Amino acid sequence: MTEAGHIELGPFPDRPGYATAQSLDDNDHLAGFRHRFFFDPEEPDMIYLDGNSLGRLPLAAREVTERLVDEQWGRGLIRSWNDGWWDLQVRLGDRLAGIIGAKSGEVIVSDSTSVNLYKLAMAAARGRNGRHKIVTDDLNFPTDLYVLDGVGQALGDAHRLEVVASNGVEGPVDALERSIDEDTALVSLSHTVFKSGYTYDIESLTETAHRAGALILWDLSHSVGVIPISLGESGADLAVGCTYKYLNGGPGSPAFLYVCEELQSQLENPITAWWGHARPFDFELGFEPVEGIRRFHSGTMPIVSLALIEAGLNVVADAGIVALRGKSQALTQFLIEQWEEHLQPLGFELATPLDPSRRGSHVSLGHEEAWRITQAMIGAAQVLPDFRAPDNIRLGLAPLYTSFMDVHTAVQRIREVVETGTHLHFEDDRPSVT
Amino acid sequence: MTEAGHIELGPFPDRPGYATAQSLDDNDHLAGFRHRFFFDPEEPDMIYLDGNSLGRLPLAAREVTERLVDEQWGRGLIRSWNDGWWDLQVRLGDRLAGIIGAKSGEVIVSDSTSVNLYKLAMAAARGRNGRHKIVTDDLNFPTDLYVLDGVGQALGDAHRLEVVASNGVEGPVDALERSIDEDTALVSLSHTVFKSGYTYDIESLTETAHRAGALILWDLSHSVGVIPISLGESGADLAVGCTYKYLNGGPGSPAFLYVCEELQSQLENPITAWWGHARPFDFELGFEPVEGIRRFHSGTMPIVSLALIEAGLNVVADAGIVALRGKSQALTQFLIEQWEEHLQPLGFELATPLDPSRRGSHVSLGHEEAWRITQAMIGAAQVLPDFRAPDNIRLGLAPLYTSFMDVHTAVQRIREVVETGTHLHFEDDRPSVT
Repeated sequence: MTEAGHIELGPFPDRPGYATAQSLDDNDHLAGFRHRFFFDPEEPDMIYLDGNSLGRLPLAAREVTERLVDEQWGRGLIRSWNDGWWDLQVRLGDRLAGIIGAKSGEVIVSDSTSVNLYKLAMAAARGRNGRHKIVTDDLNFPTDLYVLDGVGQALGDAHRLEVVASNGVEGPVDALERSIDEDTALVSLSHTVFKSGYTYDIESLTETAHRAGALILWDLSHSVGVIPISLGESGADLAVGCTYKYLNGGPGSPAFLYVCEELQSQLENPITAWWGHARPFDFELGFEPVEGIRRFHSGTMPIVSLALIEAGLNVVADAGIVALRGKSQALTQFLIEQWEEHLQPLGFELATPLDPSRRGSHVSLGHEEAWRITQAMIGAAQVLPDFRAPDNIRLGLAPLYTSFMDVHTAVQRIREVVETGTHLHFEDDRPSVT
Repeated sequence: MTEAGHIELGPFPDRPGYATAQSLDDNDHLAGFRHRFFFDPEEPDMIYLDGNSLGRLPLAAREVTERLVDEQWGRGLIRSWNDGWWDLQVRLGDRLAGIIGAKSGEVIVSDSTSVNLYKLAMAAARGRNGRHKIVTDDLNFPTDLYVLDGVGQALGDAHRLEVVASNGVEGPVDALERSIDEDTALVSLSHTVFKSGYTYDIESLTETAHRAGALILWDLSHSVGVIPISLGESGADLAVGCTYKYLNGGPGSPAFLYVCEELQSQLENPITAWWGHARPFDFELGFEPVEGIRRFHSGTMPIVSLALIEAGLNVVADAGIVALRGKSQALTQFLIEQWEEHLQPLGFELATPLDPSRRGSHVSLGHEEAWRITQAMIGAAQVLPDFRAPDNIRLGLAPLYTSFMDVHTAVQRIREVVETGTHLHFEDDRPSVT
């Protein structure tokens, strides 16, 4: 931070919206869940709007690390594999199944989202001989495009990735429907897209894919834990997702994958390794996949990071996904109203759908000075958003621990930053790694 | 455990070898390193001989979890990515490089051993057009065979995995040399094999592979941390390995991969994802690999499990790999002498090479009652080995925390088990998952 003016941190009782925020908080049945997370007493004024990227630390996580590291590793040693570790990824998968509308035995926690996407996309596209196309859109998380492109290359020259263009905010539903045809092996989309927060209708796109005879693979990373998802009811084939955003699983916590029951025996995991073997401890020379979802495992999982997921999942399950969606929509709605009142006049553009049913739990604001404003928000205004190149400020409103007053105060501080020109004191030094 | 007779736990000062153990311990310069690990005061008699599968908990691990979970996740939140997390896998890779004779920038910690093996084998075999064979042996860890077979299948029908047969104990060096030919794209072997502990000469096999124009990929899982490895000097192309055995990184801690500098720009990681992108936070639609070893990354790493590796690595680095090898060889030598004196008469067969230069740090004993003896060792004699189907008891002698008296006492307890017939009280119920 360079020299920057004083920023008023609030609260701002005289600014429009304050009473509304107060009233919304008073009527928030989920308000108490905030107390199940760690809030740093040394930063009492910090407003965290990045739970869409890394969820807060659940207080119960400390017990998990003590149990895992001190008790199970320290005392139990190798015996702990038989005492809960070996099946942990299946048990956590079953817990997750309840949150995404899947059945027990259709979900496991495993590897990273990218590796899971590779495994499932490879399995799906390789199993559809005669079809050469993987269809996605340009709103998908870029790493998903990289993985899918890699899958196409591994499958040979005739295979290709088709990236359908959007307007940058809304899912290009019509163009996708035109693109999904009899040569399409797989459709792969983010349920809620990382930048604008646009949220697809899983059921209708799944139907489109199936009508063309293609499989569909949903990346749930930005929706799991804040939007009710009905994978089973909608007939979705495959899904992957991340556990460190709204599920609060901890930094880089292992990801999950879903394969609907009917497909499990038809698809082959390309990374065939011992955790997916029918008899892993017989150490046979040949691979024989185990029945069911575990065949999509590969190698040994990082148990400490894996176990931490449970602490976060418990809070989500206790709050209930329908209640979380209700509060999330109210939060994004209130933020959009506040943007209109306070930020639109200062050059901020709304880069998130207005239709609440098509929104996730984050709101993106475009501004030509987005990079410096982000730096001033972090460095002077004690609001933590994230920046998405080239001109996007992403505000994540995790309903478990974000209050309406947080939204009101954060918007006022952003207004203060721009009105006082505080951001102009920060350097325009956007690095590649932020 | 069913009803079982009383087992004498020792020490056994009247049995041959006791004085030798005492003297070896007195002269052990590494004896003090034992105190950097947690020993459970509630199990003072337990002898842990499974450090080759899951290393003990370093006392420093508690500080790491507190720093990682409470400080960096809890307080730092998303800011911690810029405060040490983003490059952690590269920094840990550089630390590991010093242990395996690689250069800085040739090693990263990443994913699981299986996923890393898949990535490197796919990159190596795919890059060798016109060569169709991957050569390995039947001593290799079975999951490596599964992965390599999967790579062959992904590359198409003409590709195949050739598994050279051994006598079950010694590496089939001559047969491998005959098998490695002008159609061989890749040779992939375990440096120290998981069952017998046979240890290949990296330099000579690497030379054989290179003479035939093939690349070679070493799995260092069972040797890293106990055997000096000179990847650079020996000209090895590729390597993978695990950090939770002799490196004491914690249950399932992330694995590592090595790609020699010259090959890094020639090989393509098949799982192309954002951590391997030249500008990951520019979120470009197309993939462009970053220069150097980081291009072999894929998705986000589990930071808590990743960070724990450092605690274990520090102890290994402080002890020094040459000193560790010296003690490890003395330990296995003493165990073999004790086996000859006390256990060979009871029907135990040595399934580990007699030549100390061809041994790793574990010793395998075959016995027709191996399963029930293992159960009695765990359930009555308080010795923790592991069992490897169908008839193998594997005794891992981690030099950082195993004493010569541990070896003497453990051997006497095994003798007690068999002489008193204690193992016959245990059920012959070997499950597939142990």
